[in-house]
Amino acid sequence: MKKIIKGLLLGVSLLLLTSCQGQTTEKQPLPTTNRKEETGKIVSTGRVDEAEYQAVMIDGKYEISQARTLSASYLNSHYNLANFESGLLTLSKENYSVDSYLFREGQLLDKQTIMNWLDRKSKDNPTGLNPESEGEPLVVQQVLEQDYLDKKTQKLAGISLGIAVNQVDYSQDPARNIDQETALTVGKQAAQTVIEHLRQIEAGANVPITVGIFEQATKDDIAGGAYLLKGMTKGSEVTKWTEVKEEYITLPVPEGETNSATKDGISNKYRDFKEMVQGFFPNLSGFSAIAHYQDKKLDKMVIKIETKYYSETEIISFTQFVGKNLLSSLNIPGEIEVQINSIEGPQAFIVKKANENTISSHIFN
Amino acid sequence: MKKIIKGLLLGVSLLLLTSCQGQTTEKQPLPTTNRKEETGKIVSTGRVDEAEYQAVMIDGKYEISQARTLSASYLNSHYNLANFESGLLTLSKENYSVDSYLFREGQLLDKQTIMNWLDRKSKDNPTGLNPESEGEPLVVQQVLEQDYLDKKTQKLAGISLGIAVNQVDYSQDPARNIDQETALTVGKQAAQTVIEHLRQIEAGANVPITVGIFEQATKDDIAGGAYLLKGMTKGSEVTKWTEVKEEYITLPVPEGETNSATKDGISNKYRDFKEMVQGFFPNLSGFSAIAHYQDKKLDKMVIKIETKYYSETEIISFTQFVGKNLLSSLNIPGEIEVQINSIEGPQAFIVKKANENTISSHIFN
Repeated sequence: MKKIIKGLLLGVSLLLLTSCQGQTTEKQPLPTTNRKEETGKIVSTGRVDEAEYQAVMIDGKYEISQARTLSASYLNSHYNLANFESGLLTLSKENYSVDSYLFREGQLLDKQTIMNWLDRKSKDNPTGLNPESEGEPLVVQQVLEQDYLDKKTQKLAGISLGIAVNQVDYSQDPARNIDQETALTVGKQAAQTVIEHLRQIEAGANVPITVGIFEQATKDDIAGGAYLLKGMTKGSEVTKWTEVKEEYITLPVPEGETNSATKDGISNKYRDFKEMVQGFFPNLSGFSAIAHYQDKKLDKMVIKIETKYYSETEIISFTQFVGKNLLSSLNIPGEIEVQINSIEGPQAFIVKKANENTISSHIFN
Repeated sequence: MKKIIKGLLLGVSLLLLTSCQGQTTEKQPLPTTNRKEETGKIVSTGRVDEAEYQAVMIDGKYEISQARTLSASYLNSHYNLANFESGLLTLSKENYSVDSYLFREGQLLDKQTIMNWLDRKSKDNPTGLNPESEGEPLVVQQVLEQDYLDKKTQKLAGISLGIAVNQVDYSQDPARNIDQETALTVGKQAAQTVIEHLRQIEAGANVPITVGIFEQATKDDIAGGAYLLKGMTKGSEVTKWTEVKEEYITLPVPEGETNSATKDGISNKYRDFKEMVQGFFPNLSGFSAIAHYQDKKLDKMVIKIETKYYSETEIISFTQFVGKNLLSSLNIPGEIEVQINSIEGPQAFIVKKANENTISSHIFN
């Protein structure tokens, strides 16, 4: 996902943006949902990044989901949360183009419905998606809805559904492993249940639903989980599930292990780069990297460097050194993002965009 | 100070950088200093930002000052530290051009010498720059040396000296205020002492010395202090001190106060922008801004927004909204930097460069 942009916001571009904003709904009814702001006026956030959706705003406010805090509290790490959400955006872009659709946080599923699904099935909770027996691990960990509105009609025109399943159930001691086949089977059943529920809500009765099954990584995995399967509804069913070939890999890969990053040599290149940078700068307290592969190709590398803050001039010199060596040491076609942080906050960042050989850097004030 | 850059590191630029790196010193003696690495090979960090100095590296390592931890421990806030250091870089650029000089952390003054200066004068510490009597407040808080090497000869060709003086001496309870006139008088005397000391070191005997007197802001001032005076040596003296017209102003300015940001209307513009953004996004836990004026002109505004992290999609939408409104609401010629952070770390940033009407944004992974 290409997230850095340059937006010429004057002249022609400003006019274009202004005309987009102008698509208010005072004359058009909103899709029927359980929202209360139906008399409000839809405008969008606008867009400064051509690769991202504009989001729906009602009366100058960002429209939040009822279930917005659920993912943050249910998923077991920030890394899982970020991959779960941004991965579903990526799957959505395949079906709903960023130019023709507006993004809205999920408004059809309410918090209580989702919480009931995430519990075990029982007499008191007949809709639970997790096994009735305490002897079996919890598989379904989170359900995420994203809504996509047609930019012209401003009606709901697509839904995306993320189902997060566990590799490990931490709810009991000791934690219990879940084999991937079981997790996927339960995940697909859960998707079916949620789709049927959406079909009973007027706004969701007929729109296409994009579904992704996300495998949550373990708590201590700083790479985070990834999507394993994707599908699209035909009527009320996903008839065909396709494998999502997505991997998040922590670099460098431990000796002896084999994966996409050892096969294409990135793991070793990164190891050399890291050693050179650590040799240069005397006070780095952390140095980590995650590579994201899509269809076995490296599309992004994120490097996080934690430094003790002693001096502004050290940070400037360090950033220049890292920036200068980034292209020569890590000459990959994908995007590279380097964050340089300290406990005082972000100090600097460097970015090389995908398919380009230029870098941008910024020293924070 | 313009810190964001785009460096075309391929083609011609790469050749230029490579030729700069090529200036090693194996055949040329290093300037005589108290460093131990004199057999080492000078290369520079390289440069990705044309507005910044390249820094000296010895044997692949960044050359740190003996006194490097002193500023961080002696100054009373991160904001003071950043302004003290980057302000001295700015003064240096007036006298030593970034194209012709290399930067090196100060190597001539050792840690013990500086620590003795910062103490009170006494029988045991005859070189102390602070008043002998405990009844008088401590005025001189820090001494910072920066070295500038001629790129061609690789010899020390300029020194910069920052003298930080206090508005408030916190070393005793209750803290004691110091009037600015006294602080400047003591600061200038201190500069004279340090210059005389540098003249006795062989490497510093004849090079020009740029001096700045920095007034440290109070502990709770998030704008940080600023330089008040600057001067340049003639021989062993600064014969003429010039006022540095630099201000850091916290925005919005409280009602009733008057300063550069109320006179040019920026304070009100910022207040409106802040209110609009806070209205849009439901979970901002902090929102602050500092404006930097140079010669009564706004040259930079830094906005820091702290948000609770609930969702990747919230951050993307928020960044787009802020970015879109930045130019229309805050149409200033100077640089604007917006940092969007959470306790999870940096989430996004937006920058508008000086004298441009384009913005760049980046959502961190």
